[in-house]
Amino acid sequence: MKISSRSAIMQESPIRKLAPYADKAKKEGVKVYHLNIGQPDIETPVKMREAYAAVPDIIAYGPSNGLPAYRKKLAGYYRGVGVDVDPENIFITTGGSEAIVFTLMSALSPGDEILIPEPFYTNYNGFAAMAGVSIVPVTTTIDDGFHLPPINLFREKLTDRTRAIMFSNPGNPTGTVFSREELENLIDFAKENDLYLISDEAYREFTYGEKKSVSIMEFPGIEDNAVLIDSVSKRYSACGARVGCIVSKNMALLDLILRFGQARLCPPTVDQIAAEAAIDTPDSYFKEVITEYRKRRDFAFSELTNIPGIIAKKPEGAFYIIVSLPVKNAEDFAKWLLSDFRLHNETVMIAPAEGFYSTPGLGKNQVRIAYVLNREDLGKAITIIKEALKVYPGRN
Amino acid sequence: MKISSRSAIMQESPIRKLAPYADKAKKEGVKVYHLNIGQPDIETPVKMREAYAAVPDIIAYGPSNGLPAYRKKLAGYYRGVGVDVDPENIFITTGGSEAIVFTLMSALSPGDEILIPEPFYTNYNGFAAMAGVSIVPVTTTIDDGFHLPPINLFREKLTDRTRAIMFSNPGNPTGTVFSREELENLIDFAKENDLYLISDEAYREFTYGEKKSVSIMEFPGIEDNAVLIDSVSKRYSACGARVGCIVSKNMALLDLILRFGQARLCPPTVDQIAAEAAIDTPDSYFKEVITEYRKRRDFAFSELTNIPGIIAKKPEGAFYIIVSLPVKNAEDFAKWLLSDFRLHNETVMIAPAEGFYSTPGLGKNQVRIAYVLNREDLGKAITIIKEALKVYPGRN
Repeated sequence: MKISSRSAIMQESPIRKLAPYADKAKKEGVKVYHLNIGQPDIETPVKMREAYAAVPDIIAYGPSNGLPAYRKKLAGYYRGVGVDVDPENIFITTGGSEAIVFTLMSALSPGDEILIPEPFYTNYNGFAAMAGVSIVPVTTTIDDGFHLPPINLFREKLTDRTRAIMFSNPGNPTGTVFSREELENLIDFAKENDLYLISDEAYREFTYGEKKSVSIMEFPGIEDNAVLIDSVSKRYSACGARVGCIVSKNMALLDLILRFGQARLCPPTVDQIAAEAAIDTPDSYFKEVITEYRKRRDFAFSELTNIPGIIAKKPEGAFYIIVSLPVKNAEDFAKWLLSDFRLHNETVMIAPAEGFYSTPGLGKNQVRIAYVLNREDLGKAITIIKEALKVYPGRN
Repeated sequence: MKISSRSAIMQESPIRKLAPYADKAKKEGVKVYHLNIGQPDIETPVKMREAYAAVPDIIAYGPSNGLPAYRKKLAGYYRGVGVDVDPENIFITTGGSEAIVFTLMSALSPGDEILIPEPFYTNYNGFAAMAGVSIVPVTTTIDDGFHLPPINLFREKLTDRTRAIMFSNPGNPTGTVFSREELENLIDFAKENDLYLISDEAYREFTYGEKKSVSIMEFPGIEDNAVLIDSVSKRYSACGARVGCIVSKNMALLDLILRFGQARLCPPTVDQIAAEAAIDTPDSYFKEVITEYRKRRDFAFSELTNIPGIIAKKPEGAFYIIVSLPVKNAEDFAKWLLSDFRLHNETVMIAPAEGFYSTPGLGKNQVRIAYVLNREDLGKAITIIKEALKVYPGRN
């Protein structure tokens, strides 16, 4: 039987290719520290967990754009973070993933192009393949801390099929938080060229310096361009709840998104009830979580950059850091860690960064480290990288 | 701002176009009986609801193909209904909707064609639009109780882009249960022409006569062709749980489906835990539910066909019946019921069947009735239809 021509695009990412090596190590009794994924070890807030117990007698379909009570409460949350929207500007989705797929399918026609600063979240590739649109990368560099390059680098990539710019801010995999000025440059360019600005803000709360993240929805005059993608996954450490949303003032776009939403009926009902309850989580929860992540970030950055040959800029948000390693090929090193290197019968899994780049050949000696483990484990994991680099045969 | 060219295909269905009329009636204080949607009034089994309370401390991502414990238990459920599969043949999805989208995206290339007996579930149109494939309808008739036509009607629609046949069995919107012989004819044809057989069996348990529904997975020799689509929505009256699955022995197809699944990370975690618990629901629950639906089917069929001018065949499964009304245009009648007709300040919402047909002009005087209300309400709703037809100005 034939399978879809999409199989050529839906490649396994380098991270996923490593999974069998990790499984093999575990079967051999080796402890593997996972610095490769964004699954936090932080508990989901009690208020959210408790709400699951309030499951209704009939777990019925909800409206395709989400439960009205949740949308109303969510509008209040957004106003609290400086995003002035009404419930009708909010479309609830099954995770941030569906939010991106629906946005791409509604805003772009098959064959259209979307500009994305690279390195970017690998799953954008899959979403683009589903929507039949092409990603055109605009390269950012580790030396600039993955901040946006001059706007002429975007301009060079414009064609008559360019319809949108998409980015995550705070950034996965970069940890970069864009400044107001960076966003303003992008906005001017988007207005000039009638482009959608799709801003994936799933890590909004996770910033560690003076600089808070700025939402694309805070800027006036781009009501038709701006689309905010969001998710409860990271905010409430509830990745498995699969609740996200699209926020926009472009009602024509939301109307088309609604039709895609109607086809799949509704997002999960009980998880929405829980996500609504989560909004009442006290500030103290977030203060504690952000303080913990800031300490992890500081610790991971200082420990990693103390290793000879490792280069990195201090990330400003999310919970990732991309580092450049003194090796020829980071994917080979990551495999070797899993297959050949043990320290006290332990090893570490890291994400080769090549998969986050769309331009061939970039990121070959970089990896993404997710600092989602407690500091003790994080310390052990980084020590493993340090000791491994001392004996790795494929060093630069 | 431009929106996607998909907007031309993602039309609002006639059912959805009626929603504002229903809302208006409700605002005027009129009670509206909903015979238009498949949202059962049956309680979700206690075992499933209780499981939601067992939410873990961290609502984490699960594997992209579903929680291993759930897949294992589900394989046991399938073996119990005569479908001999292992956990690795099962891919858990976010509802039956995602199962169909992933199957179409993986099995068919953009531009390919899929044969579907009409009338069919309207959302198949949306799923096909998302996957960029064309639906080619094969017409079945109310006189034949919507059973499959001679295979040469399928053969006539074959082109070099035909890749699959898709159907629901028991049928939504028809209530038709295909016989083993009907399926065998379809299977021979599919084997002959290397077509996928995508069988949507969400209503498996809902059959009311001697004839039980037969799964596509029960037939030998079509391991590479057969794809079973399933959902917990109807079985456990848990439409809002959004848990479904794809079952197939075609491992190359499942491997590609996994890549789409990885892009969206995972189906909802707590809902999967609940769906796993639901499998332990005692048989007595189903006996009671099926007995209740059988009574409703018998009652609805006899009451409806007692109305002068209404034609229908007794449905064998699901919880729908398509009836032919003595009116020129069933959509106009459905609107008129909501806007103009009241019986003791009550009215009824029914689904015009035209939207279930792909061939223009078919089904214009048919409606789908979902007998998902208790018999008292069902009786009142059908009486409204009966009285309305006596005075409706647009009769045939």
